[in-house]
Amino acid sequence: MATMTEIIGKKQRGEALSQTDIAEFINSYTKGETPDYQAAALLMAIYFKGMNHEETVVLTEEMAHSGDMIDLSAIHGVKVDKHSTGGVGDKTTLILAPIAAACGAKVAKMSGRGLGHTGGTIDKLESIPGFKTALDKAEFFEIVNRVGAAVVGATANIAPADKKIYALRDLTCTVASLPLISASIMSKKLASGADAIVLDVKCGSGAFMKTVDEAKALAQMMIDIGEAHGRKMAAFITDMDIPLGFAIGNALEVKEAVETLQGKGPADLTEICVQLAGSMICLAGIGTLEECTQKARKAISDGSGFRKFKEMIQAQGGDVSVIEDCSKLIGKPLEKIVRAPESAYISAMDTERCGIASMLLGAGRRKKEDALDYHAGIILEAKTGDKVRAGDVIARLYSTKPELFAEAEAELLSAYSFGPKKPELPPLVLATLFGKC
Amino acid sequence: MATMTEIIGKKQRGEALSQTDIAEFINSYTKGETPDYQAAALLMAIYFKGMNHEETVVLTEEMAHSGDMIDLSAIHGVKVDKHSTGGVGDKTTLILAPIAAACGAKVAKMSGRGLGHTGGTIDKLESIPGFKTALDKAEFFEIVNRVGAAVVGATANIAPADKKIYALRDLTCTVASLPLISASIMSKKLASGADAIVLDVKCGSGAFMKTVDEAKALAQMMIDIGEAHGRKMAAFITDMDIPLGFAIGNALEVKEAVETLQGKGPADLTEICVQLAGSMICLAGIGTLEECTQKARKAISDGSGFRKFKEMIQAQGGDVSVIEDCSKLIGKPLEKIVRAPESAYISAMDTERCGIASMLLGAGRRKKEDALDYHAGIILEAKTGDKVRAGDVIARLYSTKPELFAEAEAELLSAYSFGPKKPELPPLVLATLFGKC
Repeated sequence: MATMTEIIGKKQRGEALSQTDIAEFINSYTKGETPDYQAAALLMAIYFKGMNHEETVVLTEEMAHSGDMIDLSAIHGVKVDKHSTGGVGDKTTLILAPIAAACGAKVAKMSGRGLGHTGGTIDKLESIPGFKTALDKAEFFEIVNRVGAAVVGATANIAPADKKIYALRDLTCTVASLPLISASIMSKKLASGADAIVLDVKCGSGAFMKTVDEAKALAQMMIDIGEAHGRKMAAFITDMDIPLGFAIGNALEVKEAVETLQGKGPADLTEICVQLAGSMICLAGIGTLEECTQKARKAISDGSGFRKFKEMIQAQGGDVSVIEDCSKLIGKPLEKIVRAPESAYISAMDTERCGIASMLLGAGRRKKEDALDYHAGIILEAKTGDKVRAGDVIARLYSTKPELFAEAEAELLSAYSFGPKKPELPPLVLATLFGKC
Repeated sequence: MATMTEIIGKKQRGEALSQTDIAEFINSYTKGETPDYQAAALLMAIYFKGMNHEETVVLTEEMAHSGDMIDLSAIHGVKVDKHSTGGVGDKTTLILAPIAAACGAKVAKMSGRGLGHTGGTIDKLESIPGFKTALDKAEFFEIVNRVGAAVVGATANIAPADKKIYALRDLTCTVASLPLISASIMSKKLASGADAIVLDVKCGSGAFMKTVDEAKALAQMMIDIGEAHGRKMAAFITDMDIPLGFAIGNALEVKEAVETLQGKGPADLTEICVQLAGSMICLAGIGTLEECTQKARKAISDGSGFRKFKEMIQAQGGDVSVIEDCSKLIGKPLEKIVRAPESAYISAMDTERCGIASMLLGAGRRKKEDALDYHAGIILEAKTGDKVRAGDVIARLYSTKPELFAEAEAELLSAYSFGPKKPELPPLVLATLFGKC
């Protein structure tokens, strides 16, 4: 058995690590036998020297097996999952899960709380009064079997190695490494037990992947890892530089998801959800991609997706009346109007700053312990490409604490760039990749 | 003030760190505010991306100032120091210090115990009964002023940042980095207060520096650092692939040093000591390099160096009689003869393995806490280039514990390579470099 120092040296020289080397690192680090400083040195060596296909597959597998491997076999049918590499105002899971379930796929989704500036899917769902995200396994499986979809908080010990490694990467500048990103995402997905996985890889100045080629390389690596473990895989490369939809914030995003399921949502959000849901349904073996994309579109137009969303909320103990009348959901927070400082085109938006502005209003956590203000957030009234005149309303801020508005407004205004010419807008989906099966 | 994560990121991108960045790292790491894992990540980034001249000078300075800066101004004259980057059987300090003192330089040497396989200078001197290596500052200065030389253990808080960083580098595969090696050595030298420093940079398959060019680059970097801090500097690049002299072990090496000071020592050891001492005396401003090298040679032939050695031992409380009759010094350990396994030329020697063999006999420490057997060690009877016949004595092992011989003999035999042709021997001094002043 190689020592950690030998393993670090091997990677430092650019050699491939063996299965034994990688297993030794993951096991000993998860158990606390390998200290953080040796893990940090190895991660930095991986940052500089990379990992080949085989190493990355093994790393992912070892990280997945560092904790519980969820067995979803008690759920009938093909279990499909979706993962997004992050994005401000990304409420797609709320829309995709019911659409996919309405079309016959099974969505048994374990989701997280927000780690970055904005709330996670679990936080968004908890803005619905009564909605329970902590279900035991039997309840969870029963709801998915009966309704077709359920979304719960990840309570199991999913990939603890990833938790430790991710925290360390964040503090040691080793986040931006393709094999480490792939292994982090895919270890959790493999452990979560779905048969098919659709990836939404964000691309743009605000994302880890700055170019389509980088994003494609990451997506292909994750598809390879998934297929090496017998999962059906697809990936979309989507633009990160414009927030999806107009709402940022927990209850505000649920409301926008409801409107989208009712066919009244923003065009960009609707289109991306139809395409992602189509590929989920397709991976579930229900039809060709074209057929399944049509099915997804129909689940919006015929209301079956929205009905499924209400069924899921009811099954998880949520108050469906707030979904039928969203004014109850969003409450009556204070409003502050943000106006355009000049007459010009909005030439670019820094989505991360939009997320920070939303956090500053109370919609996200500064620290892990922070409580969320479910009613806080932002409604954008103008996005990249829009022409505005000085004084036009470009956004509305919501919070229960008026003293938070000033800092959030300044942050949001700094997210906008203005210019004299209409900028060219990127297509919503920059590329799609499908696995072999 | 940049955060540690920002500093790591800067170096990771290959940018130069500012004075403030480096000071922040060294201060916060020495205080324990920056965790080992961030230091490890930064060291690995430095390993891959290097440091420029200015960064290395600043790093050295910050590391030196992390602890006490020794003020030697109470000692009259030019204080000269010497540092070797390591070497098995390297007893040069024992010889150089009295020669340089006999010729008018002042040698106020703080030395360490053995960290690697073999004892350090302090361990060797402590094999002389009564010799005190723990002197207080006043005693130390008084002896150097009166005798010209004293060698004490480093009790002051010399470069604590280096101690922490060196321990971490050892465990994270980041030892072999030119700027980190330079800063480690030179921070201790700057803190130790000498006016002039002669470096002996080892080169060869057993050393960090495998080629003369690498060793020259390291030497030049250290000369630059020393000169940037007003120190007079010289460096020798010497061969590491053949042990210096024949003796390895504490009392055995003192005996060989005595013989060398008496003009009866091995030719290689004598020659290197004359050259190193010559440059030390020259840096002390006593004459040209040629004149000073002649003075050093004369200090051996006229016995003044040996007399100075006895004065120093007496001043530090040692029993001079064991130096006048070295049979008392080396005692009566058990002897085990090692014979040539075949008739051939000795084509190469792995000096590190020779050191390990000596350690296995009790002459070095496996763990920091281990006690030394001062009488243990090895006398080599044949070295690289010698022709031997099967059964010839090639070495004698000494130990007080007969059970240690078998493992040590196997280790020592593995250090020898044999071949049919006489190997070409490298010159003793591969290159010399002098500073500008």
